[in-house]
Amino acid sequence: MSDLQVAPPRGMRDYLPDQLRPRLEVIERMRRIFELYGFQPLETPAMERLEVLSGKYGEEGDKLTFRVMKRGAELKRALKEVGKEGSGPDTLADLGLRFDLTVPLARVVARYGASLPRPFKRYQIGPAWRADRPQHGRYREFIQCDVDIVGTDSSLADAELIALTIDVLTDLELPPFEVRVNHRGLLTALSTACGNPPERFFDFCAALDKLDTTGREGVESEMRDRKLETAKLQELWELADMRTYIDNSSGLNQLVDYVSNFVEDAPGGKEFLGNLIQVLEFVDWLHTPSEMVMFDPALARGLDYYTGPVFEVVMRDRSMASIGGGGRYDELIGIFSGKPVPATGTSFGLERIVDLMVEHGSLVTKLKTATVQILAIEGGVDFVRFSGRILKFLHGKNISCELPYRIDSKLGKQIQTADKRGVQFVIIIGPDELREFGIKVLYEEFPIEAAKVTVKRLADGVQRQLTLDELVAWVKEPIPESPDSVG
Amino acid sequence: MSDLQVAPPRGMRDYLPDQLRPRLEVIERMRRIFELYGFQPLETPAMERLEVLSGKYGEEGDKLTFRVMKRGAELKRALKEVGKEGSGPDTLADLGLRFDLTVPLARVVARYGASLPRPFKRYQIGPAWRADRPQHGRYREFIQCDVDIVGTDSSLADAELIALTIDVLTDLELPPFEVRVNHRGLLTALSTACGNPPERFFDFCAALDKLDTTGREGVESEMRDRKLETAKLQELWELADMRTYIDNSSGLNQLVDYVSNFVEDAPGGKEFLGNLIQVLEFVDWLHTPSEMVMFDPALARGLDYYTGPVFEVVMRDRSMASIGGGGRYDELIGIFSGKPVPATGTSFGLERIVDLMVEHGSLVTKLKTATVQILAIEGGVDFVRFSGRILKFLHGKNISCELPYRIDSKLGKQIQTADKRGVQFVIIIGPDELREFGIKVLYEEFPIEAAKVTVKRLADGVQRQLTLDELVAWVKEPIPESPDSVG
Repeated sequence: MSDLQVAPPRGMRDYLPDQLRPRLEVIERMRRIFELYGFQPLETPAMERLEVLSGKYGEEGDKLTFRVMKRGAELKRALKEVGKEGSGPDTLADLGLRFDLTVPLARVVARYGASLPRPFKRYQIGPAWRADRPQHGRYREFIQCDVDIVGTDSSLADAELIALTIDVLTDLELPPFEVRVNHRGLLTALSTACGNPPERFFDFCAALDKLDTTGREGVESEMRDRKLETAKLQELWELADMRTYIDNSSGLNQLVDYVSNFVEDAPGGKEFLGNLIQVLEFVDWLHTPSEMVMFDPALARGLDYYTGPVFEVVMRDRSMASIGGGGRYDELIGIFSGKPVPATGTSFGLERIVDLMVEHGSLVTKLKTATVQILAIEGGVDFVRFSGRILKFLHGKNISCELPYRIDSKLGKQIQTADKRGVQFVIIIGPDELREFGIKVLYEEFPIEAAKVTVKRLADGVQRQLTLDELVAWVKEPIPESPDSVG
Repeated sequence: MSDLQVAPPRGMRDYLPDQLRPRLEVIERMRRIFELYGFQPLETPAMERLEVLSGKYGEEGDKLTFRVMKRGAELKRALKEVGKEGSGPDTLADLGLRFDLTVPLARVVARYGASLPRPFKRYQIGPAWRADRPQHGRYREFIQCDVDIVGTDSSLADAELIALTIDVLTDLELPPFEVRVNHRGLLTALSTACGNPPERFFDFCAALDKLDTTGREGVESEMRDRKLETAKLQELWELADMRTYIDNSSGLNQLVDYVSNFVEDAPGGKEFLGNLIQVLEFVDWLHTPSEMVMFDPALARGLDYYTGPVFEVVMRDRSMASIGGGGRYDELIGIFSGKPVPATGTSFGLERIVDLMVEHGSLVTKLKTATVQILAIEGGVDFVRFSGRILKFLHGKNISCELPYRIDSKLGKQIQTADKRGVQFVIIIGPDELREFGIKVLYEEFPIEAAKVTVKRLADGVQRQLTLDELVAWVKEPIPESPDSVG
């Protein structure tokens, strides 16, 4: 088969071990922090019934859904319907691959509500699928990392998610980043003040969301293209210029006063501003570094479903688009139960975070197999048996170790192969070691930890005669930079 | 929406936190052992192009594949073809959900072969999907845990996988189990000796595979139903009666002699027996408890693709069907590259293993959220700020801790709710604590670890006044059995 025929499907990826390890490490470290905050894991099926997915994010969302065909007799029936009036492609499908983890969360809350802890603090890390046009950094299968609190409208919950987001990214040792916070209420007031009718609000947000990539002129032309009012945009830019980190109390007071005047007459203006101030206060009270948090009145956030505070994490050097963010969405979770369920969440862009960390050297993607590999100069029963004992001993010390499957190649070749595999140490067992220690261990109850072997550290080629106990200690020392990995 | 409408799709499951935690724990413990042996993780997309999946396990396999519909213009084109000659439902689909992890492995080996370490020792833990009729313990979405060694025909690789399988299950503290080993070559010889033509071999194995569930009479009647020869079955049962643990050397010698005579004239008989003996020897040399390993000449293993040694893990008390197993399959991995690639693997039945462990109490499914929850008698700025400091301190000690979002309910109610959430300790902050320590910590640079708080351990209701340092120590003590969890 040609290379193309054994490629993964378009827009989807295979993760070979050296690409996968850093991802698994990031996920593990995220999970630790989620758990510290008392969040619990949830998993739901990759597929949902099509009616659960349909219509949740409008026509655009439906277009992005991978549909799974009916099977057996039902498929036969459906095939007969194709082409008849009123039957679309949905006649043929009954399931779809989930396009996010939020709709499944809403379904879970509707189904198990009474038996879930309240509030329900859950995280879910897993793939979602969108039949999007694949492009750089955008895939049709991608990992979502979502952390949500369902069942409370407390501003402390919103603040906690901002604190958690900062904790997670700090723990991952990312380069400097900041969290920008805004409130959907302020955006509504701004859209109205510009002269747009309420039904154009999402368009307004979508256009404003491009600020980081296209600049103010870009947003203005985008708004004109979308037939939005742009006459009073100057007021928005004035407000945007006042954005401030929340540890700057005079700046913050000035901005709050300005916004307060601005929204005085807007419906609910006082409430949302009070709500936002409360969230920012809680963030500070939670002992979160407030110099990393900014009140940014021009932050839009793309998704339609937010109803309250919204936030977004960006790199200070603006080298990359947002790597995470979230906000309150009080109307989505109740969609299946018919009654409103308050909810707030945060989400991490795993792909971008891993890229950043690899770039900045805080994650290593070098192939790493076993730490130790046992090599032999000669084969034979006693070699395998002695090696088997060494293997068990090292495994018991939590050191990964493997045997060679072939010992017919030259030692130099074996070492080369081990090095290529990412092995860090090789134990070389020759006739001397076997005679002096192997036989003693195997037939005379000599303690394995005292058996001496020849060990070579591949990073710098240093070779030592060590007991296994000494080997364990050596393995735990920091590995020197290997000459070819310098620079 | 009705309960039914918010159910997961038929045959698929939601994992709420208390159901998911034990599964995650088992997976994590498995991974540790896989890594000790030098295996590396691999991930591949949930979907594969349909032509990659088609025909790999015959018509039966194709029937079990969930097909994903084409999209956009391609779908439109395909819909027009429906009903025309030569167009089946596959005209409408271009992707399918993977039904195992072995076909994706074969694809990965064909695509990245040259850049993969050799031999390629990989594990993959992830879901697979089969449009099977759902039944007890059988789901349409299930986790596969596969460990394979690709690129060596060494018997040491086969033995290593048996050793690893035993290590994994021993580490999980399963009730007594054993590993039964056989060789496809012996089964072929047996089928031939019974008078079956070579093309009936898989039928013979499929019938024999039911031995554990239906007994010998069941197998005989199954063979008659399948029109297989049964006249000489007695010889097979005689051989089966000689099955023996490999630490019983006289029993093993006797069985080997018997088999040796039996297969003397069979094509390749000497080779496969030598191969099997070598595997069993290596298993012993790898320091694996040989009293857990049985040579069972009647072990069939269901899957068609095995070509060499096969093995299966069963509980000693036969309380459950096989919980894992594997074998050598030298013809499947090369299916895409066209040249044979030797491979051997083992696989774990996660669902059954988790069930066993929960049953035997070695895994706890009790809901567990944060370890510590902070409760308040009164709210206010200083309460939140003091709590925020405590939270940070405990998180820094790797102790999970959460705040209440509401403090308007009575303390007794708050404690009850915390207990229901699975919280183990509550810190109660009242006006006294706040006045005496909170204010000092917040305004006088008093060290947080020395602040005293009231702590209640919910399992037994013991309440203490402790500094946070003392609290950390208390949390790390073993938790007493709670009265209602006894019995």
